[in-house]
Amino acid sequence: MPLPASVQPGSGQLAITQSFSVATAGAHDAGLDSGVQRLVGQLSRQTGIPFRPKPGATPTLQIHADHGLEAVQKLDEDESYQLTVSEAGAQITAPTTLGALHGMQTFLQLVTITPNGFAAPAVKIQDQPRFPWRGLLIDVSRHFIPLDVLKRNIDGMAAVKMNALHWHLSDDQGFRAESKKFPKLTGMGSAGQFYTQDEIRDVIAYAHDRGIRVVPEFDMPGHSRSWFLGYPELSSGAGPYTLEGGGIDPITDPTRESTYKFLEKFIAEMAKLFPDAYFHIGGDEVDGKQWDANPKIQEFIHAHGMKNNQDLQAYFNQRLEKILTKNHKIMVGWDEILHPDLPKTIVVQSWRGQQSLAVAAQQGYRGILSYGYYLDLMWPAARHYAIDPMSGAAASLTPEQQKLILGGESCQWAEWVTPENIDSHIWPRNAAIAERLWSPQEVTDVAAMYTRLNAVSLDLEWLGLTHRSARERMLQRMAGAEDITALRVLADVVEPLKDYNRWSDAQGPIDFHAPLNRMIDAVYPESDPARRLSDLVQAFAQSGYKDQAIEDQLRRWLTLWRDNDAKLHPLLQQSFLLQENVALSQNLSAVGAAGLQALDYLDKAQIAPDSWKTQQLAMIEQAKGRSANLLLMVAAPVGQLIEASAGGAPHN
Amino acid sequence: MPLPASVQPGSGQLAITQSFSVATAGAHDAGLDSGVQRLVGQLSRQTGIPFRPKPGATPTLQIHADHGLEAVQKLDEDESYQLTVSEAGAQITAPTTLGALHGMQTFLQLVTITPNGFAAPAVKIQDQPRFPWRGLLIDVSRHFIPLDVLKRNIDGMAAVKMNALHWHLSDDQGFRAESKKFPKLTGMGSAGQFYTQDEIRDVIAYAHDRGIRVVPEFDMPGHSRSWFLGYPELSSGAGPYTLEGGGIDPITDPTRESTYKFLEKFIAEMAKLFPDAYFHIGGDEVDGKQWDANPKIQEFIHAHGMKNNQDLQAYFNQRLEKILTKNHKIMVGWDEILHPDLPKTIVVQSWRGQQSLAVAAQQGYRGILSYGYYLDLMWPAARHYAIDPMSGAAASLTPEQQKLILGGESCQWAEWVTPENIDSHIWPRNAAIAERLWSPQEVTDVAAMYTRLNAVSLDLEWLGLTHRSARERMLQRMAGAEDITALRVLADVVEPLKDYNRWSDAQGPIDFHAPLNRMIDAVYPESDPARRLSDLVQAFAQSGYKDQAIEDQLRRWLTLWRDNDAKLHPLLQQSFLLQENVALSQNLSAVGAAGLQALDYLDKAQIAPDSWKTQQLAMIEQAKGRSANLLLMVAAPVGQLIEASAGGAPHN
Repeated sequence: MPLPASVQPGSGQLAITQSFSVATAGAHDAGLDSGVQRLVGQLSRQTGIPFRPKPGATPTLQIHADHGLEAVQKLDEDESYQLTVSEAGAQITAPTTLGALHGMQTFLQLVTITPNGFAAPAVKIQDQPRFPWRGLLIDVSRHFIPLDVLKRNIDGMAAVKMNALHWHLSDDQGFRAESKKFPKLTGMGSAGQFYTQDEIRDVIAYAHDRGIRVVPEFDMPGHSRSWFLGYPELSSGAGPYTLEGGGIDPITDPTRESTYKFLEKFIAEMAKLFPDAYFHIGGDEVDGKQWDANPKIQEFIHAHGMKNNQDLQAYFNQRLEKILTKNHKIMVGWDEILHPDLPKTIVVQSWRGQQSLAVAAQQGYRGILSYGYYLDLMWPAARHYAIDPMSGAAASLTPEQQKLILGGESCQWAEWVTPENIDSHIWPRNAAIAERLWSPQEVTDVAAMYTRLNAVSLDLEWLGLTHRSARERMLQRMAGAEDITALRVLADVVEPLKDYNRWSDAQGPIDFHAPLNRMIDAVYPESDPARRLSDLVQAFAQSGYKDQAIEDQLRRWLTLWRDNDAKLHPLLQQSFLLQENVALSQNLSAVGAAGLQALDYLDKAQIAPDSWKTQQLAMIEQAKGRSANLLLMVAAPVGQLIEASAGGAPHN
Repeated sequence: MPLPASVQPGSGQLAITQSFSVATAGAHDAGLDSGVQRLVGQLSRQTGIPFRPKPGATPTLQIHADHGLEAVQKLDEDESYQLTVSEAGAQITAPTTLGALHGMQTFLQLVTITPNGFAAPAVKIQDQPRFPWRGLLIDVSRHFIPLDVLKRNIDGMAAVKMNALHWHLSDDQGFRAESKKFPKLTGMGSAGQFYTQDEIRDVIAYAHDRGIRVVPEFDMPGHSRSWFLGYPELSSGAGPYTLEGGGIDPITDPTRESTYKFLEKFIAEMAKLFPDAYFHIGGDEVDGKQWDANPKIQEFIHAHGMKNNQDLQAYFNQRLEKILTKNHKIMVGWDEILHPDLPKTIVVQSWRGQQSLAVAAQQGYRGILSYGYYLDLMWPAARHYAIDPMSGAAASLTPEQQKLILGGESCQWAEWVTPENIDSHIWPRNAAIAERLWSPQEVTDVAAMYTRLNAVSLDLEWLGLTHRSARERMLQRMAGAEDITALRVLADVVEPLKDYNRWSDAQGPIDFHAPLNRMIDAVYPESDPARRLSDLVQAFAQSGYKDQAIEDQLRRWLTLWRDNDAKLHPLLQQSFLLQENVALSQNLSAVGAAGLQALDYLDKAQIAPDSWKTQQLAMIEQAKGRSANLLLMVAAPVGQLIEASAGGAPHN
């Protein structure tokens, strides 16, 4: 995963034994060498085999790349590769090291355990990406994300062939990149949590080594309160400001020349620090209240013949774009920046809908899609997977216009994550988005995607990501005990609230320093058992409720759930973090019991009485509602069983 | 854990909230400051609370140490501390920073989750260790253990108040400490896996910061093949040698003056590198075959009026001891070194039995006990816990002689461990040994020990140890799947072969490069469910087989086990690493089924037929035997149920 462009299965398999070895040829490249080292290390971890190549033996895997890594990775580099695996050995050939790195990831994914040892199946793969821009945005402002966490997520990106880290480095809640020219940006705007320039260079080199560009974002003129703690003169209001905020959102003053003097120096410094050709200036959600409230700004608008705040932002963006061009950078911004006064070189990132991407392309602007790829909204992987950069309005673009669509970016906004649980908010779902951006458009089979997703999820844990293991620890913390069997049963079948519903619950500004150590912070965004239950109930219906193997499996789960509350209840009582889940656990038991009763009716070929059905469906409705910000995902499929048992479908 | 010397419970509890803060007073000490930093970090991880102390508020925890850390930690330093917790706050006072560090570990352990938040119970603790030498030996020769793994184990030692890392740095299979004077020691004797002197200094500083001494061991004249790859002239035979070995075990030639010239230079270098006053020279298991086979050596023995090889080793040790004394080091060696020609300053480490410890003390030598504390033998914690340095022969020593017993050391020999599973071989069992060496001799309640052990096990995972989580990954590797529910059921109830039985199975020399990725390498040394089953069966017997709650619990487990093979069998078949466990899984199902039948007989107040009993007990006997080097630990307790159901005990 992502599924390659072309796969021709062969016969037999390549055994991976203790004598496994790799040789490289072609352009000699340090990037390729370190890629090989990582491959061998990862394969050794995944198999538990300490490799000891035999001197003089033919290498198991031979890699040939025509050209090495560019010093600064380009957007249009050739990322293609060929991978051939036979019983005798494997070969990767690629025009660039970048392609070879992708080929190595594919090879790693091919190795599985078999009855005869670890092995990769014989296969011929010809692969290249569909889109050149396949990114992940990580917001490090709302919650600071330390270097090691960032790095393991970069490893994860490389594993699924993503090639752009969009580093959201500043926002209202914190300015995270050290500026030597303006030390108060982090000195007063980061609460001490920021990356030094050395650390930033370290991350860039780490990403480059893995074929990943780093695009920095400094969001302006909105989302920029953190700048104003040290430099209130940049803002459109009077200040002083605090990171916690309150009152109207402060924004940059685009009418003062001093603002541009500041930005000229700042951008010159950052343009040197970040070698990538693209530079993100944000531009989203400009709340114009401070502009409205400032008579001088309103005067400026009128004096320059502008109609409104939007025109003022466009003016600001134009000035900004000139500064970027002077520093040899191409401007990227959120879709609000789209304005005919800006040159066609800029890139628009669509987040408010797919429409803006198409509109931009029609106007001749390049674009990347993020609408539909917001990981923080807690959607299931299938929902992200269904959204294609070329679907919706983009489907009617001309081929020329379609070429302007560069790809997409998933977004991990950090209101509700900490270094502890960020991995589980990104992974494994992000791999589905990575596949959408890499694989051919016609790759859309959801069931097959989930099979690959489960496999890649395991690989990602071997890389050091904690998207599965962190939940264990968090559940143990809440339980105050090592054995969390019963708590895991509950955690497995719930999901956190979707979209922005947790925000609306928060009532008032979010406290970004509050502990995120509750059930909602620990559970996976997507419940695998609930999805499998739903599939199973459909299959059971299709069998006319006759398939005994399916019924047995349903009974096992329903019994587990019905009996769980008795075991879990005492534990929930003794922990202040778990007490809020008492009702949820009771609901699960009720759902399990009702499902078993429904199966009994179906078994006996009785039609369940209406009064029972009404009562049970009312229970299901109640169980489907939020409880402690969690959703009980198995309630709805059990509801279907209840309907069926009451004559809603044929049964034996 | 370890249980303090004196605990007076108070009333109420100290809430640990976001405003938690620590203040220090007394001797200002960088060691104390970094200890406080670690405490705050660990507490934040364990609670999931990002602490934000309120400026000016009274600190939650106040720490006062009269004296800072010594530059080089001494054996007889005062390690005592007082810890008082009340609803208003907590105080640690200690004569030294060392004591304060111990007090902080106790404080950390007191914090638990409660219905009203995280809190430490009100308490007054007065604590000091029973023995001054509480060590853990880690063998890094048989399998190299990287720096980060070593460090997290040092963290674990500090958490259970162990204060000496015995670093077994050389053995036949590898020489792991860089010598600048003799670069071929690691250059030819380590296969590239060794610690540089900078890394060694780093480990020593890391340990010192946590109140832990580092005692290096360079094992000689036996166990020293790795020296001879680079310096064959040190050996008693002709060479050349390889790390893999074969033939008779090479040992150092104690008859040549050049050997002592070498050791003078080598020890002078290492004595500077390792600041601790004690220096371990090994001295164990000297296989005299090379001495016997070398006419010059035999000639030397006769010419010097020695009787045998033992005298020659004593001569070697005497020469060695003089070199150590010149370098201001005190010699430590395994119990074979005990010989009246050596001065009374040396320390003897008893591993062959408790007897040698007492004999040494009678002769005026100081000693430490390791017999009974060999973690690699896979004993249950309770068995280690039952062995006391003052028990056995030592119990009859005079009080003066008893003072010569300095403590003990657990030993993690590395024949069968890798960096991946070493944590699970050491922890949590090592905490039971740590308690034996710290807490009063009368603290011997095994059930209470296990309760504490489970709690501390969880704390240790928060420290970064992987003794529980590594098994999950290893099982997933073997299964080739993320969901390992059924495999976990099997893994939970088995234990690896005990003592040296895995060795005898290996038939011939161990291949130290072989993958250690099988079930035996993944499972815990001690099965908690099996121990709990055994306890439950005893309790059930005591109730006259009438306690319904116990029976319900027994039935749940037995049903789980009976039904597990059906789920697990397909998985076992598809993995070459799991195929060997097919019989084991079938045995577990048979044991589960037999246990349920036994309960049915007991329920119905029927006496089970003899033929059934005979058949079932035969099955139990077979299931108790080794299968794929594993022991099915639940077989024996189910055997007791079968006996009882056939009239072996009263029932209703």
